[in-house]
Amino acid sequence: MSPSGGVRKVIFDTDAGVDDALALVLLLRAPDVDVIGITCCAGNVELDQVVENVLKVLAVCNANVPVYRGAPHPLLGQKKRVHAGYYHGSDGRGDSEEARQIDITAQKHLVSTESAAMGMYKVAKEAMAAGDKITLIAVAPLTNLAAAHSIDPCFSSLLKEVVIMGGNMEGKGNITLSAEFNFYFDPEAANIVLEEFCCPLTLYTWELCLEHPIPATQFSQIAHPGHSPISQYLFWISHYSAYTHHNVDLVKMHSSPDVLAAKNNTGGGTVDGNDDTEGDKAFVTADPMAVASWIDPSIVLERHTRPVMVELGGHWTRGMCIVDWEKKAADPEVLTPPFFNKEEHRRGVGIPTRLDTHKIVQMMLRAAGAPTAAE
Amino acid sequence: MSPSGGVRKVIFDTDAGVDDALALVLLLRAPDVDVIGITCCAGNVELDQVVENVLKVLAVCNANVPVYRGAPHPLLGQKKRVHAGYYHGSDGRGDSEEARQIDITAQKHLVSTESAAMGMYKVAKEAMAAGDKITLIAVAPLTNLAAAHSIDPCFSSLLKEVVIMGGNMEGKGNITLSAEFNFYFDPEAANIVLEEFCCPLTLYTWELCLEHPIPATQFSQIAHPGHSPISQYLFWISHYSAYTHHNVDLVKMHSSPDVLAAKNNTGGGTVDGNDDTEGDKAFVTADPMAVASWIDPSIVLERHTRPVMVELGGHWTRGMCIVDWEKKAADPEVLTPPFFNKEEHRRGVGIPTRLDTHKIVQMMLRAAGAPTAAE
Amino acid sequence: MSPSGGVRKVIFDTDAGVDDALALVLLLRAPDVDVIGITCCAGNVELDQVVENVLKVLAVCNANVPVYRGAPHPLLGQKKRVHAGYYHGSDGRGDSEEARQIDITAQKHLVSTESAAMGMYKVAKEAMAAGDKITLIAVAPLTNLAAAHSIDPCFSSLLKEVVIMGGNMEGKGNITLSAEFNFYFDPEAANIVLEEFCCPLTLYTWELCLEHPIPATQFSQIAHPGHSPISQYLFWISHYSAYTHHNVDLVKMHSSPDVLAAKNNTGGGTVDGNDDTEGDKAFVTADPMAVASWIDPSIVLERHTRPVMVELGGHWTRGMCIVDWEKKAADPEVLTPPFFNKEEHRRGVGIPTRLDTHKIVQMMLRAAGAPTAAE
Amino acid sequence: MSPSGGVRKVIFDTDAGVDDALALVLLLRAPDVDVIGITCCAGNVELDQVVENVLKVLAVCNANVPVYRGAPHPLLGQKKRVHAGYYHGSDGRGDSEEARQIDITAQKHLVSTESAAMGMYKVAKEAMAAGDKITLIAVAPLTNLAAAHSIDPCFSSLLKEVVIMGGNMEGKGNITLSAEFNFYFDPEAANIVLEEFCCPLTLYTWELCLEHPIPATQFSQIAHPGHSPISQYLFWISHYSAYTHHNVDLVKMHSSPDVLAAKNNTGGGTVDGNDDTEGDKAFVTADPMAVASWIDPSIVLERHTRPVMVELGGHWTRGMCIVDWEKKAADPEVLTPPFFNKEEHRRGVGIPTRLDTHKIVQMMLRAAGAPTAAE
Ligand SMILES: [Ca+2]
Ligand SMILES: [Ca+2]
Ligand SMILES: [Ca+2]
Ligand SMILES: [Ca+2]
Repeated sequence: MSPSGGVRKVIFDTDAGVDDALALVLLLRAPDVDVIGITCCAGNVELDQVVENVLKVLAVCNANVPVYRGAPHPLLGQKKRVHAGYYHGSDGRGDSEEARQIDITAQKHLVSTESAAMGMYKVAKEAMAAGDKITLIAVAPLTNLAAAHSIDPCFSSLLKEVVIMGGNMEGKGNITLSAEFNFYFDPEAANIVLEEFCCPLTLYTWELCLEHPIPATQFSQIAHPGHSPISQYLFWISHYSAYTHHNVDLVKMHSSPDVLAAKNNTGGGTVDGNDDTEGDKAFVTADPMAVASWIDPSIVLERHTRPVMVELGGHWTRGMCIVDWEKKAADPEVLTPPFFNKEEHRRGVGIPTRLDTHKIVQMMLRAAGAPTAAE
Repeated sequence: MSPSGGVRKVIFDTDAGVDDALALVLLLRAPDVDVIGITCCAGNVELDQVVENVLKVLAVCNANVPVYRGAPHPLLGQKKRVHAGYYHGSDGRGDSEEARQIDITAQKHLVSTESAAMGMYKVAKEAMAAGDKITLIAVAPLTNLAAAHSIDPCFSSLLKEVVIMGGNMEGKGNITLSAEFNFYFDPEAANIVLEEFCCPLTLYTWELCLEHPIPATQFSQIAHPGHSPISQYLFWISHYSAYTHHNVDLVKMHSSPDVLAAKNNTGGGTVDGNDDTEGDKAFVTADPMAVASWIDPSIVLERHTRPVMVELGGHWTRGMCIVDWEKKAADPEVLTPPFFNKEEHRRGVGIPTRLDTHKIVQMMLRAAGAPTAAE
Repeated sequence: MSPSGGVRKVIFDTDAGVDDALALVLLLRAPDVDVIGITCCAGNVELDQVVENVLKVLAVCNANVPVYRGAPHPLLGQKKRVHAGYYHGSDGRGDSEEARQIDITAQKHLVSTESAAMGMYKVAKEAMAAGDKITLIAVAPLTNLAAAHSIDPCFSSLLKEVVIMGGNMEGKGNITLSAEFNFYFDPEAANIVLEEFCCPLTLYTWELCLEHPIPATQFSQIAHPGHSPISQYLFWISHYSAYTHHNVDLVKMHSSPDVLAAKNNTGGGTVDGNDDTEGDKAFVTADPMAVASWIDPSIVLERHTRPVMVELGGHWTRGMCIVDWEKKAADPEVLTPPFFNKEEHRRGVGIPTRLDTHKIVQMMLRAAGAPTAAE
Repeated sequence: MSPSGGVRKVIFDTDAGVDDALALVLLLRAPDVDVIGITCCAGNVELDQVVENVLKVLAVCNANVPVYRGAPHPLLGQKKRVHAGYYHGSDGRGDSEEARQIDITAQKHLVSTESAAMGMYKVAKEAMAAGDKITLIAVAPLTNLAAAHSIDPCFSSLLKEVVIMGGNMEGKGNITLSAEFNFYFDPEAANIVLEEFCCPLTLYTWELCLEHPIPATQFSQIAHPGHSPISQYLFWISHYSAYTHHNVDLVKMHSSPDVLAAKNNTGGGTVDGNDDTEGDKAFVTADPMAVASWIDPSIVLERHTRPVMVELGGHWTRGMCIVDWEKKAADPEVLTPPFFNKEEHRRGVGIPTRLDTHKIVQMMLRAAGAPTAAE
């Protein structure tokens, strides 16, 4: 691992879906970042699969980072589980045969015998003792973070900050009508992090991702069989969800480079306004938005700080975020749940609302070893 | 009452707050509208007060319409009650002494011995028998409508349509962080109307009202002590909430007509950009938006039709609306509550999202007997 | 109908399952009772089936009573529906071919055009005006009663009392682990009756019925093909549920009269302790317990009066009753839901806890035209 | 500490109320028991107070056991907290001045720097490695146990068994109408233990304690200023709650030994049937029932094994236990929550329903150094 001088230390908490892989690639390839641990959490796929998928990315990136097995199910237990194989493929890697064949024997020793909660607690404690607080980036259900908090309620005070892809801000969900997957998978854990953690928190919400899609022409260069092993791997695992969920045919795009090049030159606009080709499409990806924005803070163009609550009950709204946009929960005329203490000061959570998509794309292209527009 | 030839018949269901009064004025003064009944529901204030406030408006407008006493509390009972006296004044008339002194002895005979639920049921049935379906405009908790449905599940098939001020569409509330007052007051009733009624429904939501405020300069002409008895009454009852909740001092505005006239001439802009005077402010009002838009359908500039659900549980979200913007509740990948039947066709509710505020203001000015810009 | 001198007037609200039929027979055959209306409610079976089943019983009993169609689904709508065909047969009559063939053409005129809610309201009002309050016996979901209350919140003040088969008192349910069918079918309606009705209420709970089964030997005389048309009808409709749910084979019992007679003579004990024959078994029936106890109040050997609440939320407990046995809800040390007002006086509900089963059986035998032990 | 040959090793998890003290005394004085750790959990009082109270008991008993600080609040956070100072005194020691003055300076070193969750996890792991599984007795909210489970989902497989004072079995609560304090304080933790733990579980419920009170005459000997330092300490801390909550005046009893001796001779019956003296009263205590029954298993006279669920939602029933007495949750006709998997085998929890109170009293008397009847 790289020396701590100048670098920013980070733990990456992941449930190893397709977008987690791209997020991890960004992190591993960032020049001034030291990934000192990867903690795995059940979510998009089962825990064993999450660990395997992380090792695949480490193999492809030729990186050595300790990996910790974490929560096999939400805080409230295995019976409350839901998965997202319909999107990420049953293996969280787009069911790619090529990805399956990558050998990870050499990576197996990276898996710690310590649990994720213990691992992140110890690593944070050691870093704190060394005068160097770490950042925790979580792009998965927040179960491991809640578990670390239950080991020691001071856990969050050991952290520099927690950066989260999860939750929502306008009542638009992806797994239910009103809730985002990571928060819905373990609402109690999300509640614990939002209510009890005392370090700065930033929430990259589902609506933010929806409003900042990656143009398909550029994504087809990031996930491309010919640019680099990393780019090739991203192509293998993205092909399925790009096709089935975003109606983007990466293979077709790779086989028509001229048309796409032409498009690229015109700034991503259409060559022919009447033709809805692949190049006009855009690709919503979630986890990389949080990671890229943390790597390069200038990506965040607008950001608010507001109290955010998580609904734990509700027939339609379990796991949904309630954002107190007008900071009015404390207003005596506004009715709040019985357990809510209006007199208590309620800390705000950072909520980015506008990102520089161009910068994100450039970072992705560089990380994937693809040619960038500027180069 | 006007003859039924060419007129549109309507029942007005109200909880007689300040904005209900303006809404009722619009309706009573509309040239082609016949208000054939006013049904009262507890909400902003207690039921007795609602009836009294309706009679005051009838006295001021010199109108004779049958008035029906309705639900004294929400469907689930008196223990679940909440009121909104903090906004509308303890009497729902801004605690105006002048309004209090208006004599309604001559109006008392208008109060029917029939209950609101029975009244609206019978009136709708008779109209249906006469081949003339009526519209029901509800700007109150929907308790009376739910009660009429419980008398006869075919009640809604007797109606031409139901127009509602209530609910929300982006998770922004006024009585709680996420719920609008009318729906929060009786979520079960709102649920019954949205789930069970089979006639067309239109929902003028809280966020719609928030996004279409009435400029204070113009409101000060609508609620003005010198234009007409109606305008004067609106001034009496609006003064309190305008001042305490919208920071608009109507008295000050009426006493500085020149400055305001100057403002008006410059299109509502500021005379002096550095001076935050009354004229720059705007006034959010809810019930009149629904009524005006129904009177003149050309006011609605944009409108969507989407399934809308009401959250009955939830710690933070009881009474909140869930709008299925992308019509994806039926998607098998999207998780829905156990009682939700994905295969059942789910009817959409009309949701206006953009209104012509100028037309609304002109209608208000005309109804209040105030000079209009165009005239 | 019998004259009102000396008789007790009653409305019977039913969802026309197997036990409802026996309950109705008891009521129609009681010497001093005048059934002035039968209101139908969806529950055990669909509403149309309920009406049909009631007419069958009227045909068999040769009785003329106005019948009112009521709620086709719970207060909150058709989507929340559940039925109990698994127990009562898909037609609520044990799917008996003989019962199906009973002609009810002559009874069809008995069905009113008025809804159940309107019917019970008007009948109660007329009786009140005549100085003769009526009793309402409800052995179904309480939807019709809640609907009548929504027509006029004073409805319950017109009644002498409401006698209910429904709810539970020790957290033991039949449709869920903790809730009884009638209350679970429409918890909101049950809540309205328990919280808002101001007349005396009596609750015959599921546990009470469980603890007072009818011995199979005696039931086989009540439901017997040879004693009378009524007894024969009860046999037809009971055979299925007796066999499938109580493991009692009525046919076998009727074909071995001697053995059973011997048993009867020994007080219901076993002839041969090692032989688990039909005669040793017992038959739990619900609705007749409430009706019999009302007809002859001396049947109730023990009775408490306690506040009873209905859980409307809960994953496991929706529809369950909470009985405040020690009257401690008002104790400030005991935590209660936010909407509960400790200072408000909370009226108790009558809860019979011990019945005289022998008297009930004798009443059933008499009503069915079967030989009674005493005769 | 006693040698491990022949002894049973136990961890004691406590929230250090009055009854916790007596339970701990029983455990420390049991001849064949080795208390290898005491884990503290917020509950009856705040966490710091719990630790202090445990050290007081260790000082009084002259025992050296490692003490671990655990959860300062329920799993879902500090905002959901409730305490029981009204019963146990604001310090959980009956606000006794004498108890306050006991010096615990010499005990402070016993407090580990490890958290309770980590402590119980490590101790269990070491014991498992040494081939000697330990028992965990929890007489507090189950937060620490849930936290240990979140460190490693295999935690419970390291344990011999978990014995719990908590929950209820007939819907009778003490902190709410339907929930017991320990389970209500942290329902999510209770749910995790009941749903996820894979070792044998035994539940000593609130109703069990209610039905097995300790006669006041005998309790006055257990908590007596003259028998021993332990007995004296129990007197100091019990006096307040005995008097205010059970109407038992220990001081008066201690000053009238003759009357009480006479009573004792007559088997606890009344000397004078008309006089309701202290001697006729009984004293409900909870935590010692679980501990005594574990120390001497012959105390349990009747015990059932049934699935037990915890209600997490509910307005009236949050924290209540649902016992599947008839093992019918798997029955397809019985409705269960959507997350419940009927096909999954559901493990039973041991539920003692009858105890030998006499044996418990004798064990208490011996532990307190008081004269026993048999001696
Ligand atoms: Ca992820
Ligand atoms: Ca209104
Ligand atoms: Ca029934
Ligand atoms: Ca305790």
